[in-house]
Amino acid sequence: MEYKAIFHIDESDRWRLTLGNVENLLNAAGSSPVKAEVLANGGAVLQYVFSSHPNEIAQKMTFLHRRGVTFAACRNAMKAYHLEPEDLLAFVTTVPAGVMELVQKQAGGYAYIKP
Amino acid sequence: MEYKAIFHIDESDRWRLTLGNVENLLNAAGSSPVKAEVLANGGAVLQYVFSSHPNEIAQKMTFLHRRGVTFAACRNAMKAYHLEPEDLLAFVTTVPAGVMELVQKQAGGYAYIKP
Amino acid sequence: MEYKAIFHIDESDRWRLTLGNVENLLNAAGSSPVKAEVLANGGAVLQYVFSSHPNEIAQKMTFLHRRGVTFAACRNAMKAYHLEPEDLLAFVTTVPAGVMELVQKQAGGYAYIKP
Repeated sequence: MEYKAIFHIDESDRWRLTLGNVENLLNAAGSSPVKAEVLANGGAVLQYVFSSHPNEIAQKMTFLHRRGVTFAACRNAMKAYHLEPEDLLAFVTTVPAGVMELVQKQAGGYAYIKP
Repeated sequence: MEYKAIFHIDESDRWRLTLGNVENLLNAAGSSPVKAEVLANGGAVLQYVFSSHPNEIAQKMTFLHRRGVTFAACRNAMKAYHLEPEDLLAFVTTVPAGVMELVQKQAGGYAYIKP
Repeated sequence: MEYKAIFHIDESDRWRLTLGNVENLLNAAGSSPVKAEVLANGGAVLQYVFSSHPNEIAQKMTFLHRRGVTFAACRNAMKAYHLEPEDLLAFVTTVPAGVMELVQKQAGGYAYIKP
């Protein structure tokens, strides 16, 4: 069986909990395929900003991305915080509207999780 | 394609974020039909109270209602805050139990979003 | 019609609101069958710890369990808080990973609610 989940985060201080949840899902799935996406909107997109000295959160994101997790940023939120795609960690994808991504993924059978 | 989403809010201080999310969904859908409902329970119902001097939140609700968004209040929460239907903004509908509305809408194919 | 819902809680101070939501769902369902599960991970598992002097929250859990509600604890969270199954209220079940439980239940048609 394939597991599909989209994690919604809109507050910066929920990143540690959210990434722990994602890692727990990957570990629980074992050898079963997992499609996991983290969708950040609101103030949570700020944690996607690239720094040459990555903090613990950015390091964990990189680690999870290498295990196949998709990280997406809402462009409405990026606009609100004056962020351009080139400001973000290289593996972060952008979507026109985070909420539309949440709607479309659930319509496609993804579970919704809001840590 | 028709998009369907129910937004759950149970804290008064999440209204600005929630209404921004709803507006982003409508804008992203463009000319595609959207069924969007905001379901308020807990302390969030207090923001539905009518005032002859509507604040920014109430004005935004009115604007979104005119664009087709449904605003619903949980009657259990209304009872807890001693609110009658006539205390609320005229376009707000009431449901017997907010959680049952969340269950039924998801069973009917609505995506769940908790900003 | 049968109603199915999983309630996700990951913060200790959301228990009162969450249990009120669960009770409202049971009451709204009347004589219709309801499958309701409360899944606790993160710091929320601490409220599952057994005490010989149960507080109001534990009493409400017991009451809802007798009405058929399932209470589950995430073992990852239990490990983080150094809790063993025998530390918990007797009716609490444990699952290997709370997030996997959320994914599987939604795949099985349960509505997701995060109070």
